[in-house]
Amino acid sequence: MKRIAAFPLALSLFVPAGASAAQAGVQAGSGTVTIIRNGSQPSTKGPADYFTGSVRVDPLFSSQTDAASTGDTRISVANVAFEPGARTAWHTHPWGQVLVVFAGSGRVQAQGSPIQEIRPGDVVWIPAGVRHWHGAAPTTAMTHMSIVLPVNGSSAQWLEKVTDEQYGGE
Amino acid sequence: MKRIAAFPLALSLFVPAGASAAQAGVQAGSGTVTIIRNGSQPSTKGPADYFTGSVRVDPLFSSQTDAASTGDTRISVANVAFEPGARTAWHTHPWGQVLVVFAGSGRVQAQGSPIQEIRPGDVVWIPAGVRHWHGAAPTTAMTHMSIVLPVNGSSAQWLEKVTDEQYGGE
Repeated sequence: MKRIAAFPLALSLFVPAGASAAQAGVQAGSGTVTIIRNGSQPSTKGPADYFTGSVRVDPLFSSQTDAASTGDTRISVANVAFEPGARTAWHTHPWGQVLVVFAGSGRVQAQGSPIQEIRPGDVVWIPAGVRHWHGAAPTTAMTHMSIVLPVNGSSAQWLEKVTDEQYGGE
Repeated sequence: MKRIAAFPLALSLFVPAGASAAQAGVQAGSGTVTIIRNGSQPSTKGPADYFTGSVRVDPLFSSQTDAASTGDTRISVANVAFEPGARTAWHTHPWGQVLVVFAGSGRVQAQGSPIQEIRPGDVVWIPAGVRHWHGAAPTTAMTHMSIVLPVNGSSAQWLEKVTDEQYGGE
């Protein structure tokens, strides 16, 4: 179980390394409501180091420090669309992760457990430190929302790719 | 600006007072992935003390303590559907709140700022302690996801109702 990479960004699971905090996030504590308009945040590709197949990430919200009351509690919310057969690498999350499935048909597997099918409206909780992967079904795409809280600047620890045999449940 | 009520529940903005933590939440740290299936969580009504008009709440996820790494960091995720003209009372959130608009046409207002229209795909950040309300447009329904982190057992502080004059921007 070799650790390949620790994702370096504090504010989002998937924001490209070149994006600054100012681009990616909203400064909390501004005293009023901030509206991030539909169409104002570019879609990105899921990095090839962390995904197999074609994956599109639409960032929704990444907060910076909310100094008013909760110190360093940040959040990162994104929609992730997997083409058929596409999936994450094996990975863990330091806080955990909530997935809300919006469309299509997908799969999720925790190490040592069987692959489980996930469908629209299903909600998935992945506890902190649980080695797992998720993705689309072999012939059907899948879109889910991802909600994570970075811990000490890290949203995920990325591990090795999910092989075709693992993806097929062999 | 009289404070009418502090919402008493730790785990969700809107779970009825009779619901136990075991019903409402998922115990983190179980070591594997938990899937909450679509259709397994009953819809509830937005309480009349905190809402004007007809509001439906669909709970998605409420975590209990994630002991593995982050102590007491909990999260509550729900979909909230407002019928035309329906809206929250004025309220604040101790951590803040993220809204993701899914359908229809709505409104949000922070105290001292103009009413702003919100549409599908828009994301709203309400910082900690900002007095505000949100709801549907007068003749069009609106559905949004709500993401909050309870602080010391409280997700929101509920204040007085939004009058028809305030809702109309007068």
